[in-house]
Amino acid sequence: MNLDQLQTPALLLERPVLERNIAAMTGRAKRHGVALRPHMKTAKSAKVASLATAGNKGGICVSTVAEAEYFARHGFRDITYAFGIVPQKIERLAKLRADGVSVRLLVDDVANVKAVAERAKALGASFDVQIEVDSGQNRGGLKPDDPKLGEVGWALAGSGALRFLGVLTHGGHSYDCRGAADCRRVAEEERAAIVAAAERLSAAGLPCAEVSPGATPNAVHATRLDGVTEIRPGNYMFFDLHQTGIGSCTVDEIAVSVLTTVVGHNRAHNRIVIDAGGLALSKDIGANEPLPNTGYGWVMDLSGKTRIGDLRVGRVSQEHGQIESDSPLPFDRLPIGARVRVLPNHSCMTAAAYEHYNVLDGGADVIDQWDRINGW
Amino acid sequence: MNLDQLQTPALLLERPVLERNIAAMTGRAKRHGVALRPHMKTAKSAKVASLATAGNKGGICVSTVAEAEYFARHGFRDITYAFGIVPQKIERLAKLRADGVSVRLLVDDVANVKAVAERAKALGASFDVQIEVDSGQNRGGLKPDDPKLGEVGWALAGSGALRFLGVLTHGGHSYDCRGAADCRRVAEEERAAIVAAAERLSAAGLPCAEVSPGATPNAVHATRLDGVTEIRPGNYMFFDLHQTGIGSCTVDEIAVSVLTTVVGHNRAHNRIVIDAGGLALSKDIGANEPLPNTGYGWVMDLSGKTRIGDLRVGRVSQEHGQIESDSPLPFDRLPIGARVRVLPNHSCMTAAAYEHYNVLDGGADVIDQWDRINGW
Repeated sequence: MNLDQLQTPALLLERPVLERNIAAMTGRAKRHGVALRPHMKTAKSAKVASLATAGNKGGICVSTVAEAEYFARHGFRDITYAFGIVPQKIERLAKLRADGVSVRLLVDDVANVKAVAERAKALGASFDVQIEVDSGQNRGGLKPDDPKLGEVGWALAGSGALRFLGVLTHGGHSYDCRGAADCRRVAEEERAAIVAAAERLSAAGLPCAEVSPGATPNAVHATRLDGVTEIRPGNYMFFDLHQTGIGSCTVDEIAVSVLTTVVGHNRAHNRIVIDAGGLALSKDIGANEPLPNTGYGWVMDLSGKTRIGDLRVGRVSQEHGQIESDSPLPFDRLPIGARVRVLPNHSCMTAAAYEHYNVLDGGADVIDQWDRINGW
Repeated sequence: MNLDQLQTPALLLERPVLERNIAAMTGRAKRHGVALRPHMKTAKSAKVASLATAGNKGGICVSTVAEAEYFARHGFRDITYAFGIVPQKIERLAKLRADGVSVRLLVDDVANVKAVAERAKALGASFDVQIEVDSGQNRGGLKPDDPKLGEVGWALAGSGALRFLGVLTHGGHSYDCRGAADCRRVAEEERAAIVAAAERLSAAGLPCAEVSPGATPNAVHATRLDGVTEIRPGNYMFFDLHQTGIGSCTVDEIAVSVLTTVVGHNRAHNRIVIDAGGLALSKDIGANEPLPNTGYGWVMDLSGKTRIGDLRVGRVSQEHGQIESDSPLPFDRLPIGARVRVLPNHSCMTAAAYEHYNVLDGGADVIDQWDRINGW
């Protein structure tokens, strides 16, 4: 099968680009002397996880219980569920523990530690647990100087079913960065925060076996990772226009795109209608902050390598996308039935609409289809 | 099973609300003396389609080929694929025709009519086809006074494999309306445009058997539908906050919501973290235009009937939602592990993240699970 035969919209994955991105991040981790625990929330694919863990310790990170179950089914035995745990989610994870899978959990609250421990005990399961640290995103987790840090640590240590393993943070505010220097600053902010939290716990008698920051822009730009034991980036496997805007990748490092077909010409409004809309591309417009006028993605030729002028998907409804440009559109070059590719604003969101990747090897042939695990 | 036992995030569907919405729209169509061809792009569920077509002619409308195949498998025999057809999509639809399913297509371009007809002939299939009319959305279709209208009509009439059936429009600009009077104005604009197109074609020797407008706000508010043969609304089955903002429904007419669990407290920033983020809710923020400060959805109590103060999901990342308020949040009322429901901004986008509906009958018991057809 090749690109002409695929039903559209379809999700494409350039394997050589993916492999280069993975090799680059594995190399960064090795240079820093830290482990790489790839976050599989973006790719959600066992095939991609196999590539991403090659040459690393084999541990992965996930964002949903469904991912944990899927990757365990595919032979992954060391899984961090990097999302605040609640008692209601313990039962499914306890089944993985019963199968011998190491499942690491995340907490930031004493009362919740007690409730989770109680549920785990009732199910006869035990878990390694990290404390979530807020390194500046202001979402979840405790600030490094929060007195509750020690309280949660000691609650874990005394819980029986839960074992205190260390600290974890996601420096998500790196997504607001502009350019390499800004990324380096936030990367150091994230490192300093997680290391400070670890030192504080150590000083309180709770040494941290794992000190784990994680966010692609920080992982790409970090100049030092002293005190860190592992990093957990995920988006770097695919990258996207948002990461290009931040300065984490070049356009030709973006490994995924959406194949779409021209279904209409609207010459009066200088728009070309395609069959990739809000569902196929996602409605994430975050990339427009660092990369203005990106709309819902850039329009590339069928090779995926060259943008067609300044063309972008300017508007979307559920199934319709509308290509726009500041110049007259090339209607003759893009007749109804023609195909183009759209580079995604945010690959984590775009990929989630698809059941599988159509894998390319640099040409127009689809060499494989790799499944994904969506849902919860 | 009841709400306490569901894994979150989960999609809930209130069957009594759905049934009232369906009865109201069926009643409107009957009062206007037009057929109701429910658009299944929102619900994408055979069970919902069975309810929506009861008391109507049985015809439905879909937005993807995957929907057409799914509904055909579930016994629906009269399907309008209301999305610009291209030759590449004919083969799968021809298989439905071979099984005796009536499949209606949509076109707005002479060259494309020829290409589609050629492909259909090669496959031995024939289709009824409507011409897409642009009634003001400025997306796809021909304006009623475009001379190409007749050209496309005669191209269909002379194509052999395609039969000219009439006209179709989606007055999507109704989503920009504010209040009933504005909706009535745009509903009449849509009606006038599609009827003008039909009259123009009739005068040119191409009488229209089907004259079909379709958009929920217009269907709710239309005061007259003279000259129209059918309407094709879809969102009305579920409604959402955007429709509430427009004035198409009340909050208690919204039939779907997302069940989510509190996973963290961020007292320093007055935020409560939940396990419904951008994937579970969608990143559609269109509802904020007519309904300011809606964020990514309103936070309701577990009954789904009462909003908790002014709480809304103010921020989302992939799996995290952050509840915000202009007042101090009720942390004690919503401890970690507590559950709330989120009313969606745009139910078509939100529902698409889920494989099935958890059906409720007014209480906390999940009385059934209904599947959905996602993808393409």
